[in-house]
Amino acid sequence: MADNRPTPRAPGKVLHITSLANPVVKEIRGLSLGKNRKASGQFIAEGLKLVAEAVKAGWTIRRLVHATRVTDDPLVAQLAATTRTRGGDVVVVSEAVLGKMTRRENPQTVLGVFDQQLTDASAIRPGPASVWVALEQVRDPGNLGTILRTVDSVGAEGVILVGDTVDPFSMEAVRATMGSIFNVALARMTSEAFAKLIAAWPGTSVGTHLAGAVDYRTVDYKGPVLLVMGAEQAGLTPALAEACGRLVKIPMAGKADSLNLAVATGVMLFEIRRGALSIDA
Amino acid sequence: MADNRPTPRAPGKVLHITSLANPVVKEIRGLSLGKNRKASGQFIAEGLKLVAEAVKAGWTIRRLVHATRVTDDPLVAQLAATTRTRGGDVVVVSEAVLGKMTRRENPQTVLGVFDQQLTDASAIRPGPASVWVALEQVRDPGNLGTILRTVDSVGAEGVILVGDTVDPFSMEAVRATMGSIFNVALARMTSEAFAKLIAAWPGTSVGTHLAGAVDYRTVDYKGPVLLVMGAEQAGLTPALAEACGRLVKIPMAGKADSLNLAVATGVMLFEIRRGALSIDA
Repeated sequence: MADNRPTPRAPGKVLHITSLANPVVKEIRGLSLGKNRKASGQFIAEGLKLVAEAVKAGWTIRRLVHATRVTDDPLVAQLAATTRTRGGDVVVVSEAVLGKMTRRENPQTVLGVFDQQLTDASAIRPGPASVWVALEQVRDPGNLGTILRTVDSVGAEGVILVGDTVDPFSMEAVRATMGSIFNVALARMTSEAFAKLIAAWPGTSVGTHLAGAVDYRTVDYKGPVLLVMGAEQAGLTPALAEACGRLVKIPMAGKADSLNLAVATGVMLFEIRRGALSIDA
Repeated sequence: MADNRPTPRAPGKVLHITSLANPVVKEIRGLSLGKNRKASGQFIAEGLKLVAEAVKAGWTIRRLVHATRVTDDPLVAQLAATTRTRGGDVVVVSEAVLGKMTRRENPQTVLGVFDQQLTDASAIRPGPASVWVALEQVRDPGNLGTILRTVDSVGAEGVILVGDTVDPFSMEAVRATMGSIFNVALARMTSEAFAKLIAAWPGTSVGTHLAGAVDYRTVDYKGPVLLVMGAEQAGLTPALAEACGRLVKIPMAGKADSLNLAVATGVMLFEIRRGALSIDA
C-alpha cells in the first residue's frame, strides 16, 4: 500500500479495548450522530476492502478498528501498519463491541474513522467531458448514497449538495455508496452560491421537471454537463428550475406519478453518458 | 368512490380508541412484524390519497385508521363510509396512538389495513407488450419497493419474487412503493416453479450479469419481456443465469464495481420500454 501523502503526525498507537464504557468506544459510537460528525469532522466507513482502498487513495484515517480475531489476517495487519505510519490509531475490540459501535447485529470485522473531505466550490473546474450532479435539498441518506454510487459508476466527477440536505457522511449514506464516497468529489454550497455556479456553467445545465416539455432522450448533452435534481417530494424549486439551461422530462406510462430520486438520477446519468459508456472499456 | 365489488361482509363498525393497550391497537402494531403479516395475510399502507386509491381499485380494506382531528375532512368521511360499506371497521385514534402504530414521529393521519393480494403463477399470461420483472432473492425492502414503483412508472405488468426474498408487504417496502404496490401484479414462486415459467416464456427473457458480453442497449427486446435481476450482493445464481435467453451487461466507467439493484433495474426497464414511452402519452 503506497504511502503517497506527507505524514506530519506521529505514528499511531495500538489500543486493545474490551469495555463499552471506554471513552474511545464512546467517541466512535458517537459518530452515528450528526452533531458529533459535525464537531469532529470525522465519519465511519465499514469493511476491510473499502477501508483499505480509502487509505490507499489518500484519505486521512484517524482510527482503524478491527475485531481481535482478524488481527493475524495479512490484509488487516498491513492496513494496521499503514494506519499507524500515517498517524492513526489501531483499535482492537471484540465483535460485540464492534456491533455496538455500528449498531449492527452482524458487523463488519473492520471499520475506519476518516476525516471528512469536501471539495471547495472554487475547485469545481469542469472539463469538456465532466458530468456533475447537483442535488437540491435531498432528504434521504439512502438515496444520496445510492446517487454517489451511480455517479461513480458512470464515471461522473462529483455531487454538489445544494441548500439544506442530509449529511453525506451519515452511516446510512456511506453504506449506500458502497465505497463510492471515496471515489467521487463532494461539495456543499448554499442556494446563492449554486446560483452563481450554474449561471456561469460553460456546457449544458439540465434539470428534470414534471413541467419539462422536452423528452430527456432528445437533448444534446454537450459537456460539461450539470444535472440538477430536486428533492424527493417537492422536486426542483422554482428558482432552481428557472436557472437550468434545459428542463427535461422522463416519460412515464403507469399510474405512478414520479420515480424514486436515485432511480431518476440513474436514468438521467446513463442517458447523459450514453455515448461515452461501452462494455469494452 | 365506486363500489364495484361484491360485499359479502356485514357493514363495519366505528371504534374510538384512546389506549395503546387496546387489543385492536396491538393487532395493528403487530403488523410491523413479518410473522403477524404472514398469519393474518394483512398489511398496512399509510396516507389518505394512497389508501383511498387502493380502496377505489378494489383492494379489501379491513380497517381504516385515522386521527380524531381529520374526522370531519370530507375525503376521510367518504373513505370511512366506503370502508364500512365494504365490511371494514373504522378506527379513530389520537395522533400519539397513530405514531405508535407506525413507529413514526410524524405519522400520516390515515392508514389502512388491507388483505395481501398475490397473483397466481398460472395467472401470468403475458401479452406481446407485457414486461415482467423477476427478482431472485432480493434482500432489501427499500430496493424491492422502489422497483415496484419503477415497474409501475414504465407501465410494466408486475414483479415475480423468486426464492427466498424480503416481504413485499413490510412497512418499509410498502412505503418505498409510494402506492405502486396497489397498481402492479405481484407473484411469489420457488426457483423450481420459476424455472418452468422462464423455460416457456414466449418472448425475450433477459438477465443482467457481470459476465454478460452483450451491451444492454443492443438487444431487440421482443415482447413479452421477462427481465431477471439477481440479489444485491451475489447477482444472478448460475442456474438462473443459465436459464435466461439473453445475458446483458450495463457498461460502467468509474471505480464502482456494481450499481444499486433498484437503479440497475430502472436503467434496464427504461431501455426495454425505450420505444414505448413518450412524454406526450
